[in-house]
Amino acid sequence: MTDLDTLSVNTIRGLCMDAIQQANSGHPGTPMGMAPVAYALWQRFLRFDPAHPIWPNRDRFVLSEGHASALLWSLLHLTGVRAVDPDYEVLGRPAVALDDLKSFRQLDSHCPGHPEYRWTSGVEATTGPLGQGVATSVGMAIAGQWLAARYNREDFTLFDFDVYALAGDGCMMEGISAEAASLAGHLQLSNLCWIYDSNRVTIEGHTDITFTEDVAARFLAHGWNVTTVADANDLDQIGRAFHTFRAETERPTLVLVHSHIGYGSPVEDSPQAHGTPFGPEGVRATKQALGIPPEADFHIPDGVPDWFAQGIGARGAELRTAWEKRFDAYRSAHPALADELERIQRRELPDGWDTALPTFPADPKGLATRDSSGQVLNAVAEAIPWVLGGSADLAPSTKTRLTFGGAGDFQPDDRFGRNLHLGVREHGAAAVANGMALTKLRPYWSGFLIFSDYAKAAIRLSALMEIPTVHIFTHDSIGVGEDGPTHQPVEQLAGLRATPGLLVFRPADANEVVETWRVVAALRREPAALILSRQALPTLDRSRLGAASGVARGAYVLADVPSGEPEVILLATGSEVPLALAAHDELTGEGIASRVVSMPCWELFDRQPREYRAAVLPPTVTARVAVEGASTLGWDRYVGAGGAVVGMHTFGASAPLKQLLTKFGFTPERVSQVARELVEAMT
Amino acid sequence: MTDLDTLSVNTIRGLCMDAIQQANSGHPGTPMGMAPVAYALWQRFLRFDPAHPIWPNRDRFVLSEGHASALLWSLLHLTGVRAVDPDYEVLGRPAVALDDLKSFRQLDSHCPGHPEYRWTSGVEATTGPLGQGVATSVGMAIAGQWLAARYNREDFTLFDFDVYALAGDGCMMEGISAEAASLAGHLQLSNLCWIYDSNRVTIEGHTDITFTEDVAARFLAHGWNVTTVADANDLDQIGRAFHTFRAETERPTLVLVHSHIGYGSPVEDSPQAHGTPFGPEGVRATKQALGIPPEADFHIPDGVPDWFAQGIGARGAELRTAWEKRFDAYRSAHPALADELERIQRRELPDGWDTALPTFPADPKGLATRDSSGQVLNAVAEAIPWVLGGSADLAPSTKTRLTFGGAGDFQPDDRFGRNLHLGVREHGAAAVANGMALTKLRPYWSGFLIFSDYAKAAIRLSALMEIPTVHIFTHDSIGVGEDGPTHQPVEQLAGLRATPGLLVFRPADANEVVETWRVVAALRREPAALILSRQALPTLDRSRLGAASGVARGAYVLADVPSGEPEVILLATGSEVPLALAAHDELTGEGIASRVVSMPCWELFDRQPREYRAAVLPPTVTARVAVEGASTLGWDRYVGAGGAVVGMHTFGASAPLKQLLTKFGFTPERVSQVARELVEAMT
Repeated sequence: MTDLDTLSVNTIRGLCMDAIQQANSGHPGTPMGMAPVAYALWQRFLRFDPAHPIWPNRDRFVLSEGHASALLWSLLHLTGVRAVDPDYEVLGRPAVALDDLKSFRQLDSHCPGHPEYRWTSGVEATTGPLGQGVATSVGMAIAGQWLAARYNREDFTLFDFDVYALAGDGCMMEGISAEAASLAGHLQLSNLCWIYDSNRVTIEGHTDITFTEDVAARFLAHGWNVTTVADANDLDQIGRAFHTFRAETERPTLVLVHSHIGYGSPVEDSPQAHGTPFGPEGVRATKQALGIPPEADFHIPDGVPDWFAQGIGARGAELRTAWEKRFDAYRSAHPALADELERIQRRELPDGWDTALPTFPADPKGLATRDSSGQVLNAVAEAIPWVLGGSADLAPSTKTRLTFGGAGDFQPDDRFGRNLHLGVREHGAAAVANGMALTKLRPYWSGFLIFSDYAKAAIRLSALMEIPTVHIFTHDSIGVGEDGPTHQPVEQLAGLRATPGLLVFRPADANEVVETWRVVAALRREPAALILSRQALPTLDRSRLGAASGVARGAYVLADVPSGEPEVILLATGSEVPLALAAHDELTGEGIASRVVSMPCWELFDRQPREYRAAVLPPTVTARVAVEGASTLGWDRYVGAGGAVVGMHTFGASAPLKQLLTKFGFTPERVSQVARELVEAMT
Repeated sequence: MTDLDTLSVNTIRGLCMDAIQQANSGHPGTPMGMAPVAYALWQRFLRFDPAHPIWPNRDRFVLSEGHASALLWSLLHLTGVRAVDPDYEVLGRPAVALDDLKSFRQLDSHCPGHPEYRWTSGVEATTGPLGQGVATSVGMAIAGQWLAARYNREDFTLFDFDVYALAGDGCMMEGISAEAASLAGHLQLSNLCWIYDSNRVTIEGHTDITFTEDVAARFLAHGWNVTTVADANDLDQIGRAFHTFRAETERPTLVLVHSHIGYGSPVEDSPQAHGTPFGPEGVRATKQALGIPPEADFHIPDGVPDWFAQGIGARGAELRTAWEKRFDAYRSAHPALADELERIQRRELPDGWDTALPTFPADPKGLATRDSSGQVLNAVAEAIPWVLGGSADLAPSTKTRLTFGGAGDFQPDDRFGRNLHLGVREHGAAAVANGMALTKLRPYWSGFLIFSDYAKAAIRLSALMEIPTVHIFTHDSIGVGEDGPTHQPVEQLAGLRATPGLLVFRPADANEVVETWRVVAALRREPAALILSRQALPTLDRSRLGAASGVARGAYVLADVPSGEPEVILLATGSEVPLALAAHDELTGEGIASRVVSMPCWELFDRQPREYRAAVLPPTVTARVAVEGASTLGWDRYVGAGGAVVGMHTFGASAPLKQLLTKFGFTPERVSQVARELVEAMT
């Protein structure tokens, strides 16, 4: 350990303490304990160029214990990482200025409480909810392997990046990390390294009170390489651990670091160190103990920034510029592949990617939207080579398998494969998909809608990060039938619709599915949830109905009165649209003028100009009936005080679908009856 | 293996095949493979009396791979388990009649697609969503240990039951099972036995494609005893495994059974066997291969029911009647404890349990509802000795620790403890709480509201099972402040409110917290979610406002105009109620007549008679403003088309709370401005 090593490590610690103290809020424990490990990784190993933090072949560093954000902010500041704008242009200003550090956890600071992707460059993933970061890192490592398989050529190693994630005891306790570790071990992701900050202290006390398993043995059982660092302050040991990781070619690596939470402070090794500022006196005492000049806050000694510039800075610049030169040659040798890579980096699609999307002829028998979606997904993925994904062990049911020639399975012996077997691990699956999206691939994953509950925290993060992960959910209602209430979603749609920035689509037939995918595949910054039926739905006869392209506006008039205003509007989504159409026919037969509005995506409809919304749902028509096989929560926004909602008010039941439709009132008779009563009440 | 053993095992298999074939829907794979294991357990080991399936000291059997329900239905039928009514009276009719089996998966059959608690007696937990059953079983085992510690006396072993859970590869892959296994290992629950049906086949194929970890080694790392059954058809091996479990005194046991999915059928060992009926020919071929008379459907050979009666029936009756006799003597020796146990079994509370609930004096500074809830919870738990629970490593923040004398920690060396350290394992924590509730204790668990996402699937099951699990969630809005958007709930309230049967409470001050607990503690069949603030909220001056007892009606008038009807109604919950009151004062100052409605529980309000609802929200007053620091989804039901909602439309941000309130518009000025505009628009 040179003087500059020590000085740098303590500078990080000092900045963290000061930032947290200034905010009087934050988590000093891990930054103090793990500063040497983070320092060693960044300064000596990480292949990352602060001058170009989105260079595609950079090593990724994910701070899974996101509460230790001050550690990351200090590193980003000291290494001089530059900011990047939303269109992926590297800017002149730093990602984290000293003023940001000084305004840690204040409004508009680039140093928020937890790392936020897109808000501060150098943050590879939004973290904080424990376990998410490590699971996301698995998706990044998969993406790295896949990019290498697809784009590397002899003499052109474009992709060989590693993925590091720093995790605490909390990450290790969360089930999602077990799911992700099991998958990573199976997939032999040797480019993945989790660093386990084993300080054995959590908020309630020593881990002895609840977490006494043998983590190293567990990871060996998961198929991992495990190496231990006995002293988190020993840079040589830390270095050897990372060399061990780099030398490993068949397994992911867990570096188990015995560390001391709040190292050097009066509260070292105690739960108090976790999430409470040390206080002015504690900071002073800690600085004294560590040999940090106690009076100067936010002190950065001369020589430290230069030292980082000579380490990570010089190494990163050299690697990055060599890569760019290599890429220039690659562009000449392999122009089509280079073009793909450039599009990937800009989140653009191949020209004409949607020309081969199918259209479906009218068919009263029709097909399930999971089936039509499977067909469209295949067309999308064939046109966009970097669309890949998998299912949480339900591909034969969710119909998300890519079946065209060469799609293959992604496995240890086939890194070209585009079908992932994610296992019965929904939460991990969604986070893995997020990791792939953060690497700018276009991933999807699938499961039954009921199991979106398992994955919700990762779905939320896709929305918060503004990344276009595609969450595909089938078996979307009591349409599940015999499997019964444990498998019949009721409240899931409401929870997803309430999530800011998530586009939730529930298409009504095969052609709405096509239009849904046309919107979804082109998304650059928004995740989408596709809500699809298990049961067959008629392919609507568009010659007599509104065009399915209306999906792009969220809601559109599907069937209407010949002229004038309707007396009543029937709103529906997905499998209940044919029901609304049948009720419309009944009402028409009775001389009641009704309109049917298909409403596959509330979020897009809400973004339309007021004129369009008023044209679809004229304010003068207050007799409105919404029909959806789900909780009614939220529909009042569209049906208003005069309206009614035919929906689910209880859990479902186990029975063949037809019986369930009658039991729960999803029949044309009931819908038209409700509509009739509303019309009569008006007159 | 006697002839009757073989006959019984094959009778089970035949019934399962026939039921599934009759329904043309269901999962034959596991019943065929695991019938001998289930048979051996039930016939030779399970201490369960079919004549009294809710005898408190029965061994519990949880079918975690719930899709294998036909196996359970066959066992319940063959052993003659009797039905139990909702008030815990054992009935004369069987839980599963032959007609139920014949109408497997049909409406109103007591053999639904997955086991449903309370619908079919003998079902100890609703299962199907994978991993839930095993995690729930951990809560049952904890309850068993706790009941033994509290109620057993020298000469009176009232509780020594074991808990078995049958799990498949899917359960093992789900993260929740890793969380639960880690906790069970730590707690040294030697009364817990998981039987792992390792058939190595899932829906997408052989587990080789995604699940290659060493499960036995993983469980050893979790601190478990692991024993293996190499042949699922070898009753002696199976018996030795269960003896090994019974002999173990310090660890939970995993019995790893190498089994064959769809054993005996043409699709044995293939994914097809999992969830597809064999078809008439497949059934015939299988029956032939196994020596089951192929022509007679639902065939129960003479002698088989008697055989079960001599096995599990006789053993169970003897144990149960001996227990009842013992309990009679116990009642004489320990009348107070016996009275507790009888109340527990009937889900009744001690007389006068709520007399010691605190009341809080008006206080403009007030306290956080997490703090007042902590005080009330302690009063509740002190009055009701079987209230116990814990936190997912957040007790110091959620304030749910029981601190009165003797509360203690539940640990391997203290089974009396009432505080559980559940670890950073929210999903497992909620399922563990469900398991305790199924054992009729009154459990709670706590975490931050944002982490309800992690636990959602288990929260849902508490509602579906109609058990009174108490889910306590603090840090309920942007009130979280500096921790930022990763920790600030937005959509969680909507998702919880949309869940049928879950009561969601967001009390506004300390006295609403008291009234919330008064309702919640007395619930017998409904789970509740308590949504509590991190930040201090004023304790309202009730001398000038509506009484907090209005909580019991879900919503009530808190502040009103002196006489006549208001021009505008302000609706709010939790931390936004003081905001509404401030806006009310502003409006009053301007001569605008407003009413403030506190609305802590939508579900209870919706159940009130129309007259009450109309009195609180007069239909004539259409100018209504709802204020809540969450997604606006659902509020339109109460504010109507003429109303407005001040809520969250994006994720939050990291900053001190005051800055966030301004940024997101939660100020009295904004609320009164919105109200003013509505009133002006009306006139």
